[in-house]
Amino acid sequence: MSDYLFINAHLLTMQGTGVGYIKNGAVAVENGRIVAVGTTAELQKTISAKETIDAKQMCIMPGLIDGHMHASYAVVRGVAQDVWNWMQAGLAPYHKYMDQPAFLAGTRTCVLEGIKAGTTLFGDYAWPMDGWGEVFANAGVRAMLTARINALPAQGMAGLKIGDLYPFDEQRGRETIDRATAFADNWHRSHDGRISVMYGPQGPDMIGLDQLMECKKLAAERGLMVHVHTAQGDREIDQMVKRYGERTPAYLQEIGYLDEQLLAVHLTEATDEETQLIAKSGAKMALCSGSIGIIDGIVPPAHVFRQMGGVVCLGSDQAAGNNCHNVWNEMKLTSLFNKIKYKDPTVMPAWEVLRMGTIEGAQAIGLGDEIGSLEVGKKADMIFIDVTEPNILPILDGPIRTLVPNLIFAATGREVVHSMIDGRFVMRDRVVLTLDERAIREEVQAEGERLSAAVAADPVHQSMKLLEAMEAGNL
Amino acid sequence: MSDYLFINAHLLTMQGTGVGYIKNGAVAVENGRIVAVGTTAELQKTISAKETIDAKQMCIMPGLIDGHMHASYAVVRGVAQDVWNWMQAGLAPYHKYMDQPAFLAGTRTCVLEGIKAGTTLFGDYAWPMDGWGEVFANAGVRAMLTARINALPAQGMAGLKIGDLYPFDEQRGRETIDRATAFADNWHRSHDGRISVMYGPQGPDMIGLDQLMECKKLAAERGLMVHVHTAQGDREIDQMVKRYGERTPAYLQEIGYLDEQLLAVHLTEATDEETQLIAKSGAKMALCSGSIGIIDGIVPPAHVFRQMGGVVCLGSDQAAGNNCHNVWNEMKLTSLFNKIKYKDPTVMPAWEVLRMGTIEGAQAIGLGDEIGSLEVGKKADMIFIDVTEPNILPILDGPIRTLVPNLIFAATGREVVHSMIDGRFVMRDRVVLTLDERAIREEVQAEGERLSAAVAADPVHQSMKLLEAMEAGNL
Repeated sequence: MSDYLFINAHLLTMQGTGVGYIKNGAVAVENGRIVAVGTTAELQKTISAKETIDAKQMCIMPGLIDGHMHASYAVVRGVAQDVWNWMQAGLAPYHKYMDQPAFLAGTRTCVLEGIKAGTTLFGDYAWPMDGWGEVFANAGVRAMLTARINALPAQGMAGLKIGDLYPFDEQRGRETIDRATAFADNWHRSHDGRISVMYGPQGPDMIGLDQLMECKKLAAERGLMVHVHTAQGDREIDQMVKRYGERTPAYLQEIGYLDEQLLAVHLTEATDEETQLIAKSGAKMALCSGSIGIIDGIVPPAHVFRQMGGVVCLGSDQAAGNNCHNVWNEMKLTSLFNKIKYKDPTVMPAWEVLRMGTIEGAQAIGLGDEIGSLEVGKKADMIFIDVTEPNILPILDGPIRTLVPNLIFAATGREVVHSMIDGRFVMRDRVVLTLDERAIREEVQAEGERLSAAVAADPVHQSMKLLEAMEAGNL
Repeated sequence: MSDYLFINAHLLTMQGTGVGYIKNGAVAVENGRIVAVGTTAELQKTISAKETIDAKQMCIMPGLIDGHMHASYAVVRGVAQDVWNWMQAGLAPYHKYMDQPAFLAGTRTCVLEGIKAGTTLFGDYAWPMDGWGEVFANAGVRAMLTARINALPAQGMAGLKIGDLYPFDEQRGRETIDRATAFADNWHRSHDGRISVMYGPQGPDMIGLDQLMECKKLAAERGLMVHVHTAQGDREIDQMVKRYGERTPAYLQEIGYLDEQLLAVHLTEATDEETQLIAKSGAKMALCSGSIGIIDGIVPPAHVFRQMGGVVCLGSDQAAGNNCHNVWNEMKLTSLFNKIKYKDPTVMPAWEVLRMGTIEGAQAIGLGDEIGSLEVGKKADMIFIDVTEPNILPILDGPIRTLVPNLIFAATGREVVHSMIDGRFVMRDRVVLTLDERAIREEVQAEGERLSAAVAADPVHQSMKLLEAMEAGNL
């Protein structure tokens, strides 16, 4: 007997090469997995369930995949946009004071925000502070966690001039690799497989060759992917050219890093030729449209990557300058930014970005066999969307079905009413069941204020670019 | 005695050149107008009110100005994106069947959607069907209505080849001008001034010179602006060059149309030089970032227009291919699209687009003295935003205040909990008080289905580009 049978829904199964729409659709869930998908008429004949839920006027689709984020920075949401050098000019003064309470408050806020916008998988990349994995485990969400690895001096890089080569500290590299390995061995496939892990050398410019290769080997031994910021900025390219005499993609190809094990994040600075090289290798791409749009004014080359057959996931990156963790936002911006980049309204249509936010997102992070579509045998990670909201209506069926474009271009995420992960409801009627929302709101406000007070008392804040906007009355 | 005193809020007054933030702010409202703005401490000393409302953890700001839209197309939301020639390839087959019931259903849905996203002024441009003005009047919203004027043959332009000059039908021009004049004389400044009117020659390519000049004269006699699609597409420019030997901006300058009376919509095809010419004249610009992004893949030259001192309002345009009427969406997209266009993250910061959505939007449509800021003497059009939502938090005060960037880049519109227009609540706790939401949802779904059935039965639907996407399973 199934646990749940959902009937009478608009289903976007994301099976096949399109969106796999089923009218008057039904889904059955048992022991955390999808056991039947079809029309309501079909499933009502064959399925008996403990609970049958009428999902009339709802769309049921796979939960959204947020493949790359730095969740903790939600605690300083909004301190680093509308400026050049967002990280140095905006985030750094706050980052200096990011201790464990602030880190966990930000991470919890991101998870809460994401659940309420339909995200079921959180691909977080972070320094693995104590309690980090537990945030995701206890929230009942699916997570792909990557512990930061680099060989940069622990005391930071103050004193370096722009353009100076980063000094590598092998001991620091050793410690971060060991910590990541311990994290992987503790957490990978834990919580019924809900929490998975990748290895995360931060960037090829931030760690020496031997340790970079060691990461790949350690990951491969465990069947894990490597999650690497790649061609993420002109500073990285400058470091690579100075140190190795070549740009990042060529370097990665030379050392054998370009293959299906790699999740290459951003590609902000990759040329079309470099993008094609990476895509052809079988490596995957994480595209953070909102973040890179705000902080760099750049549209990364995901369209070229996909045209070469490459698989792309979306990521909300960081809220210091994105400023939200919302895959609906990423899907919409991805479509619009690419239409603008190519001056072509047919580029990246709604269905394509919906695939990036679901099945292709799952494939990009190595979970394409487990999640990302409504398909028998897959984990039951699903969201339920009220399609009677006035910003979505009408939902027309033919000759042109309007469901997908209206979700992509008009939905905000607030139309998601229920969310199920691993067959368990984590949100029902917009109440998050696994988190104390009020406590998290108060915690993140208090932690953000504490960080702000520390920054205000530190002369470092005088370097912040947004101070000018404050003084002009623009904030 | 005031009717309302709101206290303890974050105020974005939009006074001055920035956002006019007041901490622990308060606003008093009496007889539909703002009678005091300041700190809570100040106003509590001087104001006595029938009702005092604690707006703690809320932001109060002017209602949003949606300066250009075709509201009725909400009834066919989502039939015309991701294609070239959206109007012909997507909208036209449905437009053919747009009768009064469909028109009114779409218009009502747009108003409902807009209220729920914080819009208080609706700048609708439409063929003035019976009942049109009443939708806005009865919903209690502020509206700037423009009745369509053109001299195109009433029976349409079937049979014309692309590139053929449109035939002008002076009789049709006469009828549409007379109808617009009757509409203006009935509706302008009606409902305590809540409903205002502009004259709307559809485009300089769609009406002859004499009638175009007559529109300006009739408008001027009544103190009204003219609301004209200007340089809106390559088809328009082609018509103008063939008919008059010059592009639209030069033509408008020559005939004396470029002045403060003009609201120039789109400027999609205007060069930077043409944009500067129009801005310098004192004409205003309506910028529809979402719509033009989706349907053309173009970012109109609003940044150049503003740099010349020009005043810009935002518009949600049309839901057939935008696909939403949400000024938050327009503010965010305007900032991001322009950062991308200029590859510069400092272009169009949050505060600038917030001004376009409020005070500058009001100025652009000639209502800058009445609405657009929280200022003593202005009409009380205000929205109340819950800033404790997890996608907005934390709200930090210093050294960098995060309220404005978090509203612009992370809010969705759903955070607006109350809306007041002319000193009366039209929405309270997200319940729209002036409309029957459920009836409108049902009406627009039914009308949309009726139109779809008519299109499906008409061979014209075989020309629709999105049919290919339907057949491929992408919709």
